[in-house]
Amino acid sequence: MEIKIMKNVLDRNQNKANEIRTLLQEKKVLMVNLISSPGAGKTTLLDKTIENLRNKFRIGVIEGDITTDRDAQRLKKHDIPIVVINTEGGCHLDSHSISKALPEFDLKNLDVLFVENVGNLVCPSHFDLGESFKLALVSTTEGDDKPIKYPMLFREAKVIILNKTDLIQYTNFNMKNFLKDLNNVNGKVTLFEVSCTQNTNMEQWYNWISSQINSK
Amino acid sequence: MEIKIMKNVLDRNQNKANEIRTLLQEKKVLMVNLISSPGAGKTTLLDKTIENLRNKFRIGVIEGDITTDRDAQRLKKHDIPIVVINTEGGCHLDSHSISKALPEFDLKNLDVLFVENVGNLVCPSHFDLGESFKLALVSTTEGDDKPIKYPMLFREAKVIILNKTDLIQYTNFNMKNFLKDLNNVNGKVTLFEVSCTQNTNMEQWYNWISSQINSK
Repeated sequence: MEIKIMKNVLDRNQNKANEIRTLLQEKKVLMVNLISSPGAGKTTLLDKTIENLRNKFRIGVIEGDITTDRDAQRLKKHDIPIVVINTEGGCHLDSHSISKALPEFDLKNLDVLFVENVGNLVCPSHFDLGESFKLALVSTTEGDDKPIKYPMLFREAKVIILNKTDLIQYTNFNMKNFLKDLNNVNGKVTLFEVSCTQNTNMEQWYNWISSQINSK
Repeated sequence: MEIKIMKNVLDRNQNKANEIRTLLQEKKVLMVNLISSPGAGKTTLLDKTIENLRNKFRIGVIEGDITTDRDAQRLKKHDIPIVVINTEGGCHLDSHSISKALPEFDLKNLDVLFVENVGNLVCPSHFDLGESFKLALVSTTEGDDKPIKYPMLFREAKVIILNKTDLIQYTNFNMKNFLKDLNNVNGKVTLFEVSCTQNTNMEQWYNWISSQINSK
């Protein structure tokens, strides 16, 4: 019975996600569903990316958090539209909460909408938000075994950013093992190896996301 | 309706957890429910703790993982009983899976059972496993804002270990902010600041957990 109910929840989520996807295609808005463990660097990635792209594109952000608006506060300085969704204990965003947030944006005047999901490597992977694609962020300090231990997100993502490469030298992260496992889970994924705080290799990511926005 | 069903799930989980707690008290086994984000260092903490305590106590481990037995493989060298629970996509352990694993142990000849939950700072906090207490592990590289952003676990935990203190100098982790937020969430919690890989401040933790095992 639990399984059936979970299926109903996912079916309803999928229907709403399909509606959102159609709407955003009409309005020519790229939506990126950003997923990672807590503290992998989602907000820092957005901070740097917005800083770099804000003169080229019209950007919006949905901040998913269990409680608090701390991440939104960190992005406030960019003076772009930001909507906070507090899940009040919930472990992921779903398409219904996105649907309620979208009317807060002037979609006709938006090029890209970044959705920062709740910090969780598991549950957000199961819920389609109507996004254009999922972006998985993983940091070197979490260890090299995340793709094989949490395969669903890494299988679903169109692009993966490996963050905190500046800290590799202080950890036992093994790049060869990481790439080998990742290749087993998703051999076709696009990967960027960066340090957001040190601005290392960020240009490649900015170019890639710009091309995605331009080709939407 | 969904809320009612979630309540039923939690009620059934609680009933089984109560049974487990009674059983383990009878058998004088301390059970520790270890919860953290992916990659915070749960398995490394267990590795070091088992190494230190194995001559004093009879130790068992339940390894909760979505898939793979990689964590169990890392602990195999200690030659202690280990049971792997693969949740097959599930985001947390529940008391029913623990109940099925317990008969694999000779409880009369066990002093402490460490349960390594699925790497997830959210969902495992909602499910009582029948443990003696929850141990929350958080690492400095995740940032100093975890207690305030994911308050439930930090409120429920009897003890918190802040790991990877050796990496603080390479991050923007602010200890004062961390302690302030933690104090707001849970003013009475016991906190150890350690580096598992560098063996820093681990003796205090070993002494504390030993006293917990001795007084069970």
